[in-house]
Amino acid sequence: MTRSPIAGLMFLWLLLGPLLSGAQAAADREKLLTEPGIYGTFAVFTLDEEWAKQELSTRIAHLATFKGVVEQYREKVAIDLYLLRGLSDQADLLFRIHATELRETQDFLLDLRSSQFGKHLKAAGIMHGLTKKPNYVPGFPDQMKAELKTLSEAGPKPYAIVIPIRKSPEWWGLDQEKRAGMMQEHTAATMPYLKTIKRKLYHSSGLDDLDFITYFETSKLEDFHSLVLSLEKVKEFHYTRRFGNPTLLGTIQSLDEIIELLAQ
Amino acid sequence: MTRSPIAGLMFLWLLLGPLLSGAQAAADREKLLTEPGIYGTFAVFTLDEEWAKQELSTRIAHLATFKGVVEQYREKVAIDLYLLRGLSDQADLLFRIHATELRETQDFLLDLRSSQFGKHLKAAGIMHGLTKKPNYVPGFPDQMKAELKTLSEAGPKPYAIVIPIRKSPEWWGLDQEKRAGMMQEHTAATMPYLKTIKRKLYHSSGLDDLDFITYFETSKLEDFHSLVLSLEKVKEFHYTRRFGNPTLLGTIQSLDEIIELLAQ
Amino acid sequence: MTRSPIAGLMFLWLLLGPLLSGAQAAADREKLLTEPGIYGTFAVFTLDEEWAKQELSTRIAHLATFKGVVEQYREKVAIDLYLLRGLSDQADLLFRIHATELRETQDFLLDLRSSQFGKHLKAAGIMHGLTKKPNYVPGFPDQMKAELKTLSEAGPKPYAIVIPIRKSPEWWGLDQEKRAGMMQEHTAATMPYLKTIKRKLYHSSGLDDLDFITYFETSKLEDFHSLVLSLEKVKEFHYTRRFGNPTLLGTIQSLDEIIELLAQ
Amino acid sequence: MTRSPIAGLMFLWLLLGPLLSGAQAAADREKLLTEPGIYGTFAVFTLDEEWAKQELSTRIAHLATFKGVVEQYREKVAIDLYLLRGLSDQADLLFRIHATELRETQDFLLDLRSSQFGKHLKAAGIMHGLTKKPNYVPGFPDQMKAELKTLSEAGPKPYAIVIPIRKSPEWWGLDQEKRAGMMQEHTAATMPYLKTIKRKLYHSSGLDDLDFITYFETSKLEDFHSLVLSLEKVKEFHYTRRFGNPTLLGTIQSLDEIIELLAQ
Amino acid sequence: MTRSPIAGLMFLWLLLGPLLSGAQAAADREKLLTEPGIYGTFAVFTLDEEWAKQELSTRIAHLATFKGVVEQYREKVAIDLYLLRGLSDQADLLFRIHATELRETQDFLLDLRSSQFGKHLKAAGIMHGLTKKPNYVPGFPDQMKAELKTLSEAGPKPYAIVIPIRKSPEWWGLDQEKRAGMMQEHTAATMPYLKTIKRKLYHSSGLDDLDFITYFETSKLEDFHSLVLSLEKVKEFHYTRRFGNPTLLGTIQSLDEIIELLAQ
Repeated sequence: MTRSPIAGLMFLWLLLGPLLSGAQAAADREKLLTEPGIYGTFAVFTLDEEWAKQELSTRIAHLATFKGVVEQYREKVAIDLYLLRGLSDQADLLFRIHATELRETQDFLLDLRSSQFGKHLKAAGIMHGLTKKPNYVPGFPDQMKAELKTLSEAGPKPYAIVIPIRKSPEWWGLDQEKRAGMMQEHTAATMPYLKTIKRKLYHSSGLDDLDFITYFETSKLEDFHSLVLSLEKVKEFHYTRRFGNPTLLGTIQSLDEIIELLAQ
Repeated sequence: MTRSPIAGLMFLWLLLGPLLSGAQAAADREKLLTEPGIYGTFAVFTLDEEWAKQELSTRIAHLATFKGVVEQYREKVAIDLYLLRGLSDQADLLFRIHATELRETQDFLLDLRSSQFGKHLKAAGIMHGLTKKPNYVPGFPDQMKAELKTLSEAGPKPYAIVIPIRKSPEWWGLDQEKRAGMMQEHTAATMPYLKTIKRKLYHSSGLDDLDFITYFETSKLEDFHSLVLSLEKVKEFHYTRRFGNPTLLGTIQSLDEIIELLAQ
Repeated sequence: MTRSPIAGLMFLWLLLGPLLSGAQAAADREKLLTEPGIYGTFAVFTLDEEWAKQELSTRIAHLATFKGVVEQYREKVAIDLYLLRGLSDQADLLFRIHATELRETQDFLLDLRSSQFGKHLKAAGIMHGLTKKPNYVPGFPDQMKAELKTLSEAGPKPYAIVIPIRKSPEWWGLDQEKRAGMMQEHTAATMPYLKTIKRKLYHSSGLDDLDFITYFETSKLEDFHSLVLSLEKVKEFHYTRRFGNPTLLGTIQSLDEIIELLAQ
Repeated sequence: MTRSPIAGLMFLWLLLGPLLSGAQAAADREKLLTEPGIYGTFAVFTLDEEWAKQELSTRIAHLATFKGVVEQYREKVAIDLYLLRGLSDQADLLFRIHATELRETQDFLLDLRSSQFGKHLKAAGIMHGLTKKPNYVPGFPDQMKAELKTLSEAGPKPYAIVIPIRKSPEWWGLDQEKRAGMMQEHTAATMPYLKTIKRKLYHSSGLDDLDFITYFETSKLEDFHSLVLSLEKVKEFHYTRRFGNPTLLGTIQSLDEIIELLAQ
Repeated sequence: MTRSPIAGLMFLWLLLGPLLSGAQAAADREKLLTEPGIYGTFAVFTLDEEWAKQELSTRIAHLATFKGVVEQYREKVAIDLYLLRGLSDQADLLFRIHATELRETQDFLLDLRSSQFGKHLKAAGIMHGLTKKPNYVPGFPDQMKAELKTLSEAGPKPYAIVIPIRKSPEWWGLDQEKRAGMMQEHTAATMPYLKTIKRKLYHSSGLDDLDFITYFETSKLEDFHSLVLSLEKVKEFHYTRRFGNPTLLGTIQSLDEIIELLAQ
């Protein structure tokens, strides 16, 4: 993407903003991203029509307030950013926020919306889920459990996909054993993709009009397509009342990359 | 959340508004919140795009009119306030209003909308329900009835959740005994959560496109998630045609807290 | 509701507008409201965001044009007004218009929309139905027919409710006798409420995406809730594909009351 | 409807616009409206909020550009106009356009939208269908075929109704003979209304999210209601997945009548 | 369509923009349009209300930035343009973009949206699919395979139609053999239209809320209608949960034709 040399200089200034107190913040973030009992929020925004009409210098000043709010909350909540524009319907930005309490997520989003940048954001959707210990895995065969520990390949995974799911009342009406059997078949279908697709599950019942939020990262969208196709073919899929609607597809971006893109 | 010292001083002035005539109002409020035959209205609003662009002094002046209207009606209707922004889709504020007649609720909402603050509110949804004596509880076993009298734990319950419900025609077609049996199973599933989750039921048939509005308060959202998961597993859930859509999740706030937040 | 003394004086002037030629208009109105073969239109409007920002004097001048249009058509069509704001989702005003031809209703609504007041109205929905002689009543037992002639109690009925209905293809596929049997059960369920709830039925098939518009007036919303609950329990309800969506709940207002409210 | 004498004079000028070369255009129009293999487009528009705020003289100047575009295309496509405002939900104008190629319809609508009047039109919906020779009629009994040739009564038919239809996959899965049998029952139900209701059928599969567009003209809406009620009772109706949504109800107007109405 | 001579001259200047480095770009485009493993994106836009109000010279200047962005990306991605206005609901332009990585498509759309022209585009929908080797064809009888190689007739095919498809869980639950049998019946139904209708299939599962995007080009819309009617009659159609919604119908246009049309 093209940009002017003046804008480049102004970004330098932006990038010199307050930095996290390093190790502590990283430890907290690691914990928020890996432990059970953490709330994950997916907040989708569109930019209003005013934004694109602002002067470059105004946009850069506003983006500095954006950076300020994100930096301020980085020690309490883990914030990940995704660019949806150009890949998802009528949405521009996705924030994934992990926190031990949803009040902290609300505080962050309130301050974000109150910032000069935030006044240009229009809320397009919000979903919440909770991380929990695996429900069915303990009952799986040992070999399967071992394979599930396969780490996904190192290297950048530029794409993220978020698919909300609601099960049918019939699903919840099945006994635990029957559900476990179907989830084993479901999990077996995902095995060929463990290396190239990173995944994370959030439980939503009661927090939103969903039962689950499924989150994926990959560098190979073709593999992700094959994975979903496999999942559509297992028996458990018959008990899914909503799959997507919306399917959010975007690219993972650092705060500075997003700021640079939005300045244009 | 950060705020300027000047704003702080101006709030002092705001907080010196007319106060309720104490005991009488409290007694009326207690009655409205506990007796059967009371109408409960859940009115959801978003703030228009103009609001955030107003000067701080203008916002504070407008919020004074907001406070005035709420204080004026406090002896007739019971008004509770919730902040949805940052937690629920495309909504900012929720008013829960209890009144002996819906005309009084309408009068309050008309005056609210006509106030200088109210001109910035956009109606995003409204639901009505009626409080009634328990329908199925009288037939439950004595031990269950005793346990249901368990009070929820003292202490603040910062989160509120509102879930509208429509049953299927098949539900209403069942005889009273069958429905009572399923409601007993439903109620049993809620027992482990009586201490941490406060609940209230409103009957809506005919007053809105719903059969029930279920309202919850808790400090433990994880417990609330577990409660809903348990309710999805009982037989009665198969007779639920709409559960949520929307699920409203917010934080309980006093009038002064809301005013302080909105001034920012 | 509070209002300024100046506004009060200006209303006096408004209320001195042209009056109907008395008896003739009343006779026509009576006929339109009671005979079969009359078209009933339910037109729902919201006020635009400009309205609340107009000067009081401008609003009053515009409301005079509103009054003028309504008075002008009062001899041809019967116009009833309802305030939905504060009770129904995203709607402010409901007009119920009875006419012998829908062209006359269209003429009225066109002139209304073209008036200075009407330019602030946004159409939020419109439904049409036809009054007809009772379809199933002639076959009911004599005692039931007699009871159905019970007049509703005198005295004001401040609330009005409008519920649109679409039946399933299975309903229309039943033979007349089966439908009559179920309608007798349906009607029996309404008997306890004949005194406190006034009702009127409009047939819509082909005029709109509905089969019926049901209209109710009452001073006891709790009775209306009980009535709907009873109707949900009869067999005929299983053949209802749409019930409400929207349910319109409002208060009945005279033209002058509406004008006074809108001036604020 | 009332209008000023000045506006009346200005209309005179408008009505002196270029006229069609008479006989040729009439012949083409006749062909487009009666032959199979013709594309019919139903384009629905609303007027934007600016329109009502224009000066009368500006509105009249803009309407002249409207008239110009319609006159320019009258030899290539057949254009019919309907006023929906006051009778249909959130729509003001309906254009019915018949052409031998949809490209010609697109050219007309592009030029309309580019005109000074067209800049005030917001597209609210568009449907396309194809006229074809009757599918099932050739197999009907001779007497039925004879009766179907009954012409509708002469005289003005002020109302037009458009009902889009999508059949279920089960319908298309039936063999031709079964469908023919049900269509004969369907057609028999329409016989009592041949005289008072003019009808036309367009086939839409693949051109839009529909299977058929049904178009009706009548002076007796009560008859039209009875017709639809009869059609809801035949077996074929069970295979209809969408009937209406929207049902468009309007009045047939000449170009000059529409221009006069829009000038107000 | 009419246009002024001045506009004509200014187009000359526009058409003298940077040209592709010929053969290389053509080869890449050919590869992107024919090989498997390529991502196809269908991005739908509407023009905002400001666009039509710009001066002609401003519009032409903005369109030059549009042309610039398209030319800049032409070596990396294959871009096709379609005019939907006048033929499809509430949409004006369709871009079909083929790329080896969706990130490249996102880069193009971001730069397009950031251009002076792009600021007038509102995203109305986006769908992604992947080209793959035929799934069922290898198992078809040899004669059928041979016939499927029939090329569509030469000559312009002005119309394009895009129909998104979601299959039911039951479809994916069938074994491969049963699906292959039904796809053979489906394919047989398409044989009469191989010459007049060009077609292309994209696989979407996981990339969007779809399973397939079907794309067609033709000069004979009547044939396309007959094709869809045939496909509605085969057994496989019973396993289709969504067919269209939206159906996009437009005309294929070169970049210069679109620019000329938008300048008006």
